[in-house]
Amino acid sequence: MKPQTIYGMHAVRAVLERQPERVLNVLLAERREDPQARAIEELAQRQRRPLKRVNADALRQLLGDAIHQGVAAEIVPLAPWSEDDLVAALGTAQAPIILALDGVQDPHNLGACLRTADACGALAVVVPKDRAAQMTPTVRKVATGAAETTPVVSVTNLVRTLKLLKDAGLWVVGADAGATQEARQVDLKGGIVLVLGSEGSGLRHLTRQTCDLMVRLPQRGSVESLNVSVAAGMLLYETLRQRDAQ
Amino acid sequence: MKPQTIYGMHAVRAVLERQPERVLNVLLAERREDPQARAIEELAQRQRRPLKRVNADALRQLLGDAIHQGVAAEIVPLAPWSEDDLVAALGTAQAPIILALDGVQDPHNLGACLRTADACGALAVVVPKDRAAQMTPTVRKVATGAAETTPVVSVTNLVRTLKLLKDAGLWVVGADAGATQEARQVDLKGGIVLVLGSEGSGLRHLTRQTCDLMVRLPQRGSVESLNVSVAAGMLLYETLRQRDAQ
Repeated sequence: MKPQTIYGMHAVRAVLERQPERVLNVLLAERREDPQARAIEELAQRQRRPLKRVNADALRQLLGDAIHQGVAAEIVPLAPWSEDDLVAALGTAQAPIILALDGVQDPHNLGACLRTADACGALAVVVPKDRAAQMTPTVRKVATGAAETTPVVSVTNLVRTLKLLKDAGLWVVGADAGATQEARQVDLKGGIVLVLGSEGSGLRHLTRQTCDLMVRLPQRGSVESLNVSVAAGMLLYETLRQRDAQ
Repeated sequence: MKPQTIYGMHAVRAVLERQPERVLNVLLAERREDPQARAIEELAQRQRRPLKRVNADALRQLLGDAIHQGVAAEIVPLAPWSEDDLVAALGTAQAPIILALDGVQDPHNLGACLRTADACGALAVVVPKDRAAQMTPTVRKVATGAAETTPVVSVTNLVRTLKLLKDAGLWVVGADAGATQEARQVDLKGGIVLVLGSEGSGLRHLTRQTCDLMVRLPQRGSVESLNVSVAAGMLLYETLRQRDAQ
């Protein structure tokens, strides 16, 4: 597979720390001599990954107008995860958070969900193979690097995967405007799967039946429903808030 | 001004309830005879607004593929608010929430913020006139009706407006990845202005200085920053959560 380029202090540091074996090359702007840049340098050295100082033009040529903060890295792309990979990853994760999207068709929405899942430390994003957006260049672009670090698991049968995750000990929590409980009233501190429906029509009947419980999100205005990536953001926020408050 | 068309049970009901004088005409699908539809009918009658039963084709012609749930309304468009309108509205609002966007340039992001602000019951969205997205058809489309109900206040000098709102008794809370306090650690229950920065570069220096306090949002992954509409959603969610938990 063709190497992927990621950029930004945070993104490069995260991959160097967590998956150093994927880093082929780090590029750091010559002019950056601050503590953040030195930390990247030390981290690359410690992880034994090659780092090259380059001038501003080289970065501009590689990344265009992206806000790269003077750092980029070429990395081995993330291979798509199978259901087995997902279940295997549960073994080592503590109170994992998985985001499942039931039929999100808009690639911008999938990319935005991926970016949000990544920012909130989700283990993976699960999407059905049929009637749903798949990983495309548009999705990767909107995800601004998250597609290179947060795995997407494309599954044949979402309900079966949710049951598999339930069997593995996770709670399956669905978002629905008509639910009686609010997200804050439900314990989200253990391992969970957060399930969000497609734009407009929400969760499918069988998906809903598979959920252990349903929660609702704010709906005070005149608009019919929240954008799915914003709803995902709120639910992930609530999950992290409960854990931090513990 | 040309009438605007809004659609969806929730959207039409909200305008009929809150601003009936803006409703020119309600269109309801013939086949809808359920309690929700009857409630719309009764509401229109009570507010003395004309309602017409139409067939599915008429709605399809008007709205295309939109998920209209069998209901639409033609309404008088929302006139843009001036700074004076905003300050006047504070007089009657209880613990108002205002969203201020410091230089958000992408029309999709502005539309998504408007939609989220509306869903969370924000009083208005404030944007600077210069170097920021303004209300365009794209913004209205992405906002899926929120542009017809949540006023946008386009101001010459954002810092001056924030000071005006401070003088009116509101707290000005800025979002920043580097803030020491998390949103959940700060009291958001009184009247507040939530200030979010532009994609990538965050709040401008003077905007930041005008804020009473800064809060941070989750940042655990490899991606540099949350999408501004997702960040707005999290901050608005936290605000409503604190108020509901009270």
